Amino acid sequence: MAGKIEAKLAELGIALPPAAKPIANYVPFTVSGKLVVVSGQIPLKDGKVAFTGKLGEGVSVEQGQESCRICFVNVLSQLREAAGGDLDRVKRVLRLGGFIASVPGFTQQAQVMNGASDLCVAVFGDAGRHARTTIGVPVLPGDAATEVEALVELA
Amino acid sequence: MAGKIEAKLAELGIALPPAAKPIANYVPFTVSGKLVVVSGQIPLKDGKVAFTGKLGEGVSVEQGQESCRICFVNVLSQLREAAGGDLDRVKRVLRLGGFIASVPGFTQQAQVMNGASDLCVAVFGDAGRHARTTIGVPVLPGDAATEVEALVELA
Amino acid sequence: MAGKIEAKLAELGIALPPAAKPIANYVPFTVSGKLVVVSGQIPLKDGKVAFTGKLGEGVSVEQGQESCRICFVNVLSQLREAAGGDLDRVKRVLRLGGFIASVPGFTQQAQVMNGASDLCVAVFGDAGRHARTTIGVPVLPGDAATEVEALVELA
Repeated sequence: MAGKIEAKLAELGIALPPAAKPIANYVPFTVSGKLVVVSGQIPLKDGKVAFTGKLGEGVSVEQGQESCRICFVNVLSQLREAAGGDLDRVKRVLRLGGFIASVPGFTQQAQVMNGASDLCVAVFGDAGRHARTTIGVPVLPGDAATEVEALVELA
Repeated sequence: MAGKIEAKLAELGIALPPAAKPIANYVPFTVSGKLVVVSGQIPLKDGKVAFTGKLGEGVSVEQGQESCRICFVNVLSQLREAAGGDLDRVKRVLRLGGFIASVPGFTQQAQVMNGASDLCVAVFGDAGRHARTTIGVPVLPGDAATEVEALVELA
Repeated sequence: MAGKIEAKLAELGIALPPAAKPIANYVPFTVSGKLVVVSGQIPLKDGKVAFTGKLGEGVSVEQGQESCRICFVNVLSQLREAAGGDLDRVKRVLRLGGFIASVPGFTQQAQVMNGASDLCVAVFGDAGRHARTTIGVPVLPGDAATEVEALVELA
């Protein structure tokens, strides 16, 4: 029987992809006690980077939000693995880190990162209300437009 | 009766502002056991961003230090909330993350970030001696000159 | 008698330098329970920054990898201090954060950061398999080419 969070994902029309393999020599998550550290996720979708380039130069705020949303879907896939398949074990999303590839004149990183934060709250409710640090960066691995990392507490 | 840290703040002439509201869909801090994760704080003061722009291009090292100091005052406000109003419960500031909006030729991020670190040690003494990661970034949300996040252990 | 990890370091031909002093007002690591937070390490070697400048502009991928490797050697020095001199107490490297000074057109940050990750896995084996977030940055303190921070669990 599907869990509460899986049911919410279905309601939101989100099918989690298989957890993405890291693009280098590291693992997608580690666990220490109840804490899960999720590696920075880029907007991989169907095997390719869905959004490349920079905000303020070819990537719109709306595209950046969608890019962050995909990053967070990939966070969810990793988190499901970390939780032994049961996302209902997520007690609290403690922190999201948002990295937004930006030209120096682009200042709407907070709005862009909401693409991840809004989905997090939609999926987990109060347990998804997270602390957050969002910054602009000049460029990301693989020319990804955005990257999102997470720190999560399991029950 | 005011606590030890509140007395120290008064001695330093620092009046903590009300904890700033996040500028997007997240919360200013989360708590997991004894750990407090404080969201990245920009130099909000009296409702506006006190320092905008970049180091090496219109923002001086001294202004950057003052900007970091204000960021850390905002960290303190959040931390006081997280600690149920009692900053004496801070056992150790484990880590500060410093993000300094910089032109590519500016390399004094460490000195700038001392604006936050010096205040942290002044306020908390040994409990304020923190690990730290400081980096340059091209631009921050709302064109803030600096941003500071924190990881803190409560007693 | 040397521990298992010290023996592995000797086998790899790595002599850990004395733990580097912070370049500003903070400490090189903090400990909370079993968690160790290691401050961002730049590629200090023999008292100077071994690699300065940016990837994509004078610093090659190979040099960047060597720079990350030196950063991680410095992480190891700090970690040994944190572990009371005994690196065998490292239960798991939970997370590495990699910051790669990059021109906006350079996108191989993941390969560069492998200079740290590969050494981490070579030294610690399965305990060294870490979560990771790697980003490009415009510039780092002291014009360092790379910076690496760590979160580690002790036994």
